Amino acid sequence: MSNPQWNPYDRNCPTRRLLDRIGDRWTVLIVGALGDGPLRYGEINDRVDGVSQKMLTQTLRGLERDGLVKRTLQPQIPPRVDYELTDAGRTLREPLKALEAWAIEHMSGVISSREDYDAHAS
Amino acid sequence: MSNPQWNPYDRNCPTRRLLDRIGDRWTVLIVGALGDGPLRYGEINDRVDGVSQKMLTQTLRGLERDGLVKRTLQPQIPPRVDYELTDAGRTLREPLKALEAWAIEHMSGVISSREDYDAHAS
Repeated sequence: MSNPQWNPYDRNCPTRRLLDRIGDRWTVLIVGALGDGPLRYGEINDRVDGVSQKMLTQTLRGLERDGLVKRTLQPQIPPRVDYELTDAGRTLREPLKALEAWAIEHMSGVISSREDYDAHAS
Repeated sequence: MSNPQWNPYDRNCPTRRLLDRIGDRWTVLIVGALGDGPLRYGEINDRVDGVSQKMLTQTLRGLERDGLVKRTLQPQIPPRVDYELTDAGRTLREPLKALEAWAIEHMSGVISSREDYDAHAS
């Protein structure tokens, strides 16, 4: 822990809101999509099936503001906007991939557990 | 990936909602608190500063339903309820600790980046 003053267990610590941001499903999927290299807006939109324009724009802007994604306007006709992970954004890939992998690996077990729980909760 | 049928990039895949659950700030903090061993409700409440009764109860119930937390009624007077991670729940500790560590490590950089962004966005 390079900054011991930050503590998400403290209600006023800004790391709590940062956790909301980085653990958000759209962040996980967008950072995952950008993990392979720069993409255009429309390409991200295609990869993250079902994301609304509003959520995609909002999440990309938040990531740009946080210094995790870089937006580049390519000077061509028609103009083209690329998004890519910054160095800081790239450090998020591994923890978010681990989260994604966990969800995939445990989905079946979680579904069984929910069925058991609901069967006994009546 | 032991279950290649699950894919959170697909809008209908239940892993997407599972990502919401596990990436949630309260899940991160509660699983983190339970990482050291079983705790009573009031002890979790103390460790996760500022969590409301509603969110704590709801998050614990969701984790129990998902098979990640086990609730045990200790037969004593007064009765006492302990919460602990299940084997599946323990596998979440590492990815969620990584998320927490990322937030702590990058908080200062993110704040600087936001200041820069906001200074240029006027």
